[in-house]
Amino acid sequence: MQTTTAPAVSAEQQAIEQNLTDTVVASFDGTPDPRLKTVMASLTRHLHAFIRDVRLTEAEWNAAIEFLTEAGNITDDKRQEFILLSDVLGASMQTIAVNNEAVGNATEATVFGPFFVEDAPLIPLGGDIAGDAAGQPCWIEGTVTDTQGNPVPGARIEVWEADDEGFYDVQYTDGRVAGRAHLFADDDGGYNFWALTPTPYPIPHDGPVGKMLESTGRSPVRASHLHFMVTAPEHRTLVTHIFVEGDPQLAIGDSVFGVKDSLVKKFEQQVEGTATPDDRNLDKTPWARARFDIVLAPEDA
Amino acid sequence: MQTTTAPAVSAEQQAIEQNLTDTVVASFDGTPDPRLKTVMASLTRHLHAFIRDVRLTEAEWNAAIEFLTEAGNITDDKRQEFILLSDVLGASMQTIAVNNEAVGNATEATVFGPFFVEDAPLIPLGGDIAGDAAGQPCWIEGTVTDTQGNPVPGARIEVWEADDEGFYDVQYTDGRVAGRAHLFADDDGGYNFWALTPTPYPIPHDGPVGKMLESTGRSPVRASHLHFMVTAPEHRTLVTHIFVEGDPQLAIGDSVFGVKDSLVKKFEQQVEGTATPDDRNLDKTPWARARFDIVLAPEDA
Repeated sequence: MQTTTAPAVSAEQQAIEQNLTDTVVASFDGTPDPRLKTVMASLTRHLHAFIRDVRLTEAEWNAAIEFLTEAGNITDDKRQEFILLSDVLGASMQTIAVNNEAVGNATEATVFGPFFVEDAPLIPLGGDIAGDAAGQPCWIEGTVTDTQGNPVPGARIEVWEADDEGFYDVQYTDGRVAGRAHLFADDDGGYNFWALTPTPYPIPHDGPVGKMLESTGRSPVRASHLHFMVTAPEHRTLVTHIFVEGDPQLAIGDSVFGVKDSLVKKFEQQVEGTATPDDRNLDKTPWARARFDIVLAPEDA
Repeated sequence: MQTTTAPAVSAEQQAIEQNLTDTVVASFDGTPDPRLKTVMASLTRHLHAFIRDVRLTEAEWNAAIEFLTEAGNITDDKRQEFILLSDVLGASMQTIAVNNEAVGNATEATVFGPFFVEDAPLIPLGGDIAGDAAGQPCWIEGTVTDTQGNPVPGARIEVWEADDEGFYDVQYTDGRVAGRAHLFADDDGGYNFWALTPTPYPIPHDGPVGKMLESTGRSPVRASHLHFMVTAPEHRTLVTHIFVEGDPQLAIGDSVFGVKDSLVKKFEQQVEGTATPDDRNLDKTPWARARFDIVLAPEDA
């Protein structure tokens, strides 16, 4: 496949284009808030550089306006096409990256996603987050420590996930609460609970973002994952997922670029009849287990 | 006023962020259309560079999503907030710049704007485009030549403008046709017609783009201008305006960056009773006159 090379641009033309960019940047000189001024100037410079680099055609500019218009049309209280757009362009993950700079061995952050709900049920250690959600039972266990390896007792752990149809509870219209809960680490920072083995599902792809993915040969499917948000005093809040080692979507590519190697975990399949860690009777159902040791960064990192 | 300086970013963190950008760019590797692949890769690189350069906060990311959502909400058949956004960020003018590269002494292009209408009335040389539009009469004259100074006989000249209330005919709901026409240059490339002396007007500023202009201390007002589109076989179509020398808005700044020095013309005010070039009886009304000599680039430039 050949890439398109822009034709050479004369020095005179380059000066005209640069002058226009500088004029637009200067138009923000009177912005009272210095941070807003910085953001608008940088946005302008990068937007103009994009247009100049690709020598954007007027037809392409029209297509971009049409794309944004369609995204606006499909967006409502339940559908947010602009967040999807940010997600599939990796802009959401890049924003998370710059706001959660790596700290030593602290667990890496990934996308929050749109399906977190406040006030999910409290479960005890060893409890089950599934509720009525269907899927394979999965035992999750691990510890919460700081970057020096000290336990973080009582850390609050929020967990949420889709069912084996690929839907979160809030995507159903019956008001169910399922596949989500919160629990607290014990005095040694340990935790464990039952969940469902995560399965892959596509982001909504019947709008302009879906069309863009299709025309660029990209999959709308997210790699299988289980969401975590872990909070504890004096520690940076961790928003992350764990992914399933061997999930074919890991090779195809997570549609929102949430995967980090350190977050891919072995989900060990257990044949039916295998004894469970808490002697739960799964009645001959196969199950899985995974370990996720969480390391929280200090608050001021 | 102090600009905000981003904190130093470690080499390890930079590598994480660059790796994310590279991963997103690589996700477009399978795009069947090589041009689309180039555009998406460049868009991704510039978008990520913006986020990294300003260290975009999560609150700012949320504000951007909210801004786009509001722009989508206000956009309909009659209101196009995304075009306004492109205009006030200079993206429209930069797109015009890269598609109309400077050719010697050819007249410079500027924004097309949303108010052109096909099939505007034909007027003879010396005719009046005003119709029922209110404003000061203004005699416009000039020539259409090529870059070697040869006349372009029969060049088609479309002209359109707002009335002295700052509205184009299509912004009224009564179906009027006023302040627009087309005419043809004579055998020597000469042309002249009556129009209205242009006056300033604001772009629609009751939406998110207007709020952005207000919070950055910018004026929504466009510098006074008269639109031209000039077409002739074997010549590049010219879409441009002329601006009014001495218009205070030129110093404040045109809200869509359409002004180029070469397009600012002297509109000479004539006291009431001054004889008109075509002996038109203006019944003691003051009037103005301006000259605009148009130079068309060759089609293949």
